[in-house]
Amino acid sequence: MPVKVAINGYGTIGKRVADAVIKQDDMKIVGVAKTKPNYEAKMALAKGYALYASNKDSLAKFDKAGVKVRGTLDDLLKECEIVIDCTPEESGYKPVYEKANIKGIWQGGEEHSLTNLSFNAAVNYSECYGASYVRVPSCNTTGLIRTLHPLESSFGIESVLAVMVRRATDPYDSKKGPINAIEPELEMPSHHGPDVQSVLKTLNIHTIAVKVPTTIMHLHAISVKLKRTATPKDVLDVWSRSPRIKFVRGEDGVKSTAQIMEVARDMSRNRSDLYEIAVWEDGVHVVNDKQLYYFQAVHQESDVVPENIDAIRAMMKLEKDGKKSIEKTDRSLGITG
Amino acid sequence: MPVKVAINGYGTIGKRVADAVIKQDDMKIVGVAKTKPNYEAKMALAKGYALYASNKDSLAKFDKAGVKVRGTLDDLLKECEIVIDCTPEESGYKPVYEKANIKGIWQGGEEHSLTNLSFNAAVNYSECYGASYVRVPSCNTTGLIRTLHPLESSFGIESVLAVMVRRATDPYDSKKGPINAIEPELEMPSHHGPDVQSVLKTLNIHTIAVKVPTTIMHLHAISVKLKRTATPKDVLDVWSRSPRIKFVRGEDGVKSTAQIMEVARDMSRNRSDLYEIAVWEDGVHVVNDKQLYYFQAVHQESDVVPENIDAIRAMMKLEKDGKKSIEKTDRSLGITG
Amino acid sequence: MPVKVAINGYGTIGKRVADAVIKQDDMKIVGVAKTKPNYEAKMALAKGYALYASNKDSLAKFDKAGVKVRGTLDDLLKECEIVIDCTPEESGYKPVYEKANIKGIWQGGEEHSLTNLSFNAAVNYSECYGASYVRVPSCNTTGLIRTLHPLESSFGIESVLAVMVRRATDPYDSKKGPINAIEPELEMPSHHGPDVQSVLKTLNIHTIAVKVPTTIMHLHAISVKLKRTATPKDVLDVWSRSPRIKFVRGEDGVKSTAQIMEVARDMSRNRSDLYEIAVWEDGVHVVNDKQLYYFQAVHQESDVVPENIDAIRAMMKLEKDGKKSIEKTDRSLGITG
Amino acid sequence: MPVKVAINGYGTIGKRVADAVIKQDDMKIVGVAKTKPNYEAKMALAKGYALYASNKDSLAKFDKAGVKVRGTLDDLLKECEIVIDCTPEESGYKPVYEKANIKGIWQGGEEHSLTNLSFNAAVNYSECYGASYVRVPSCNTTGLIRTLHPLESSFGIESVLAVMVRRATDPYDSKKGPINAIEPELEMPSHHGPDVQSVLKTLNIHTIAVKVPTTIMHLHAISVKLKRTATPKDVLDVWSRSPRIKFVRGEDGVKSTAQIMEVARDMSRNRSDLYEIAVWEDGVHVVNDKQLYYFQAVHQESDVVPENIDAIRAMMKLEKDGKKSIEKTDRSLGITG
Repeated sequence: MPVKVAINGYGTIGKRVADAVIKQDDMKIVGVAKTKPNYEAKMALAKGYALYASNKDSLAKFDKAGVKVRGTLDDLLKECEIVIDCTPEESGYKPVYEKANIKGIWQGGEEHSLTNLSFNAAVNYSECYGASYVRVPSCNTTGLIRTLHPLESSFGIESVLAVMVRRATDPYDSKKGPINAIEPELEMPSHHGPDVQSVLKTLNIHTIAVKVPTTIMHLHAISVKLKRTATPKDVLDVWSRSPRIKFVRGEDGVKSTAQIMEVARDMSRNRSDLYEIAVWEDGVHVVNDKQLYYFQAVHQESDVVPENIDAIRAMMKLEKDGKKSIEKTDRSLGITG
Repeated sequence: MPVKVAINGYGTIGKRVADAVIKQDDMKIVGVAKTKPNYEAKMALAKGYALYASNKDSLAKFDKAGVKVRGTLDDLLKECEIVIDCTPEESGYKPVYEKANIKGIWQGGEEHSLTNLSFNAAVNYSECYGASYVRVPSCNTTGLIRTLHPLESSFGIESVLAVMVRRATDPYDSKKGPINAIEPELEMPSHHGPDVQSVLKTLNIHTIAVKVPTTIMHLHAISVKLKRTATPKDVLDVWSRSPRIKFVRGEDGVKSTAQIMEVARDMSRNRSDLYEIAVWEDGVHVVNDKQLYYFQAVHQESDVVPENIDAIRAMMKLEKDGKKSIEKTDRSLGITG
Repeated sequence: MPVKVAINGYGTIGKRVADAVIKQDDMKIVGVAKTKPNYEAKMALAKGYALYASNKDSLAKFDKAGVKVRGTLDDLLKECEIVIDCTPEESGYKPVYEKANIKGIWQGGEEHSLTNLSFNAAVNYSECYGASYVRVPSCNTTGLIRTLHPLESSFGIESVLAVMVRRATDPYDSKKGPINAIEPELEMPSHHGPDVQSVLKTLNIHTIAVKVPTTIMHLHAISVKLKRTATPKDVLDVWSRSPRIKFVRGEDGVKSTAQIMEVARDMSRNRSDLYEIAVWEDGVHVVNDKQLYYFQAVHQESDVVPENIDAIRAMMKLEKDGKKSIEKTDRSLGITG
Repeated sequence: MPVKVAINGYGTIGKRVADAVIKQDDMKIVGVAKTKPNYEAKMALAKGYALYASNKDSLAKFDKAGVKVRGTLDDLLKECEIVIDCTPEESGYKPVYEKANIKGIWQGGEEHSLTNLSFNAAVNYSECYGASYVRVPSCNTTGLIRTLHPLESSFGIESVLAVMVRRATDPYDSKKGPINAIEPELEMPSHHGPDVQSVLKTLNIHTIAVKVPTTIMHLHAISVKLKRTATPKDVLDVWSRSPRIKFVRGEDGVKSTAQIMEVARDMSRNRSDLYEIAVWEDGVHVVNDKQLYYFQAVHQESDVVPENIDAIRAMMKLEKDGKKSIEKTDRSLGITG
């Protein structure tokens, strides 16, 4: 019997996790909850998802807009075994899930302390096996973990400085800017550093964040002081054996995040998503044997999607071996490595 | 036996037409030709297309880059019955196709005079039936024809003024701007007006074009003086019975081209394309009974793709009835009307 | 004795009007009021303006930030004869000014009904002579009036359609977007049409507005059906004799709003402002003798500044002749026509 | 007698240096040379500069456009003692200047090897005293030198990593993009590192460059390992005594490059330029006593302008003391420190 999954918050992440769940044979979507009867709600219905209003107030809006729902979140929670919470940060649903006696997964907008368990399939799958509450760190944090964990395992890491050049908002949004400015995050380290440490506990990392006028991807310029010497080829070899990393090459004309997203579209993936972290093969440099520099790009809308699937599988004890779960998830989403 | 189709120029339009052709049961791709061994060429191979270099010089580049091709365009042309020319404007391949004795379809970058037949499936399918050389007008022109032709048929049109707020470049491109400017096309009318008249011969239309810093869609603000009175509902009714028009609503939160593209992504179409012209239902206004105003958005990368398929079908006499071809094409691409 | 002017709201418009007032010999700034002790407040002090907090709450913020003010708005109003209200729309200060028994000028964010007098120096200076409350229409409306009024006077106007391609936010702002989208104003006509009619009472005008990702200028594509025949040269001649219109030429490399703003910078004006409406000389076209099309660009931050100065002069009876006021203002600001 | 200065290349930098020269009492502009009779050429005339065509071909263009010039560059060079070369990189005029027997200053587009002397007023003024050929490094390099040199002098520097988030093009330009992408410079170190070393010979610096869709300023995220311990206050104190550094504060609402440029406009400087390097006071952080992080923003169009003035003064032996030259230049340009 497939595990019954609910989605609370059918937005950028929620709708993607829903579409990923229905591609698995060991889980299914029993419904999605949404606050507003907007175009995304209508698309949810068009896709065949059972739609629920987030609460009584929402319900009234759906009724007024003539958009049929099955009930409210409370009704939905009765139908499911686990809920993926993709609501805005600090929405505070934990007590509700506890009361409903169901497991829950949160996204990176929440603090690690909400669950005390932050998940990355390649790092701590077994630690989350059977857990009730788990958090999948944010897109940027997940991106850093994906490439840093293999480096740490293979070469040891003295220290990391990651400068994150962040997209300012998602493609669907037309309200937020800036249109023509660069905005540094003046507090330091940015929250990403400690967030990476919620998974890679002992990593010595400092993060700096800068916001720029683009919507499609984040770009990270990363400086890693390795403990053991490595060549660029060594590093690329390690990454080629690690999950959810995709190489791109400036030489092939992939010179910016624009062309990376074009590659993703050419792969005919759902919503033109790129679940992998893109690393420029010809942007990997090692200076003085141990000082590594590289660039990576993060598709903020989708890189955490496969992690959510694996988290469900771990928490619901559908698969004991993290590697097998990763492979199963990746196969279903067309991630070929 | 499916018709053998070649693609010359595997870029924004070429790769989309290729992917659309292989969804048909009455035609197939025998190969695609490309000038450069870049990431798009590699994706063509990954998708299983037979890849050819555009010419001898290209061939050398492919060899040097270690990207295997089957030969050059000349070789490809021997394998096909019809070629879709998606090369940059004025590439001048017509004599080559004539010599190879194959039919050819060009895109809107070319002048009408190249073929003296400009195609729109809903307007002049039968006129192009069996033709050797046909041109599919540009994305903007096709967009104007899609909504104006039904109006002309149903209400008569005294005159049209279309102000086109144009995206400056396509999403894959990171070279072209502007980043922060608006650029009017000072010559008037813009080429789009006469181009519409290459299909709608007697339409009295004036077009004005303005370039803005966005990559995802063109937006048209259109003013139509109708010959007969009509309400917004009358107009919407006519369009709802016309092919390849999709309604969106500001009330549903679709307030800009950003949300239209998000809807397209939510539909899980290939490359997140929107083949239809998007018209804002709540942006249709009629003043003084006959003066109609409306907004439409054009997905410049894909709206001409179904037209190319229908053009192949007409020229190769695969289907006599334009309506049936449109339905067949739309079904294959997931266009539900 | 120069007229004593106060500025309520020292933001984009307020600070510019202040700097323009101090260039006049018949008026002076007695103080500026601001809600927040931010960098603009500090610059006001650096420039030597007497700074006041908008209210008691503001005062506390200024105190906390250690930014010295002279008191609150109430104190400032006691010092002045007329206040220029540059606060956000519908801030509702009118009763306060009435109680303080001072005259007031509002900006275009307010409704015409607030004052029942909307001002344009070239159109209705004498009508506002001695008036107590006057509104200067918005940047876009002022821009339309500047070029349409001379046309109406010289050739008569049957009807106007103005499509306004609007900058989304001002250069100083880094919060608002869109970053990559075009957003039409679905309601029609946009408020600009009726707003133009608050000054040009009998003009038959329809306006359409579209928001685009740029910060520097609005661009208008305007279609005018004239009553009498005119050539482009006739039209340019009329405008060359009209105030606050500046010609630019695509042939000179001024192809977009970017180069217009560069011209403004090259003129070494304060804040690189362009008080004039820029009209492309080689973008003026006449079809069938009476159908005129033209493009103009509006520097949203500054085109209303000289109008505010003239409005002060009219209301305070400093100069009876509107033309003379315009000349005086223009000379002081470096507007040479 | 003021030194006679010619400008070859009246574009972004050239026109600014010209306007700065005429503010000095010990030098004057004898003419400016330009290739095209565009709007900038016309503004040069309007400002009263003697205008020359770059060469015979240019001359023909000026004649055709009816823009009067005094002759060609060859004629201009006869009138001057020193030429500021602001032509595009590698224009190759050095032999021409040598033949004309005049001194020359180049900008940062050129290689250090062209002159073997790269200039920064605060670092090596005396080294360039009386020199014939000098190069002023690029905007980014000058920006790095301005803040790193005082740190090196006061605390010693172990190593620097500077990540430069670069504006993609200047505000006047409407051709270049990207509109919506981030583009890393895959080669490493970017040319800026070695370029800094052309002035700060022994500095251990690595630079990484990323291009983003903005036009107004570059932003640098800089990590410096100091040799001696320092607090943020120590660092700010050192910078406050160093030339051409301006502090801004996020707390004051200066959160991005947009507000920095707004401050520059509020200062009523010519062309709204910011000659200083802007450093966020509340973005300076020290970790573990010696690891310093800070953000700075560089106004690419103007930060090298005062350096050019000082370079003229050094090369022409107008002032022996670099500090005095800096003070003189700064006073003339309104730089108050």
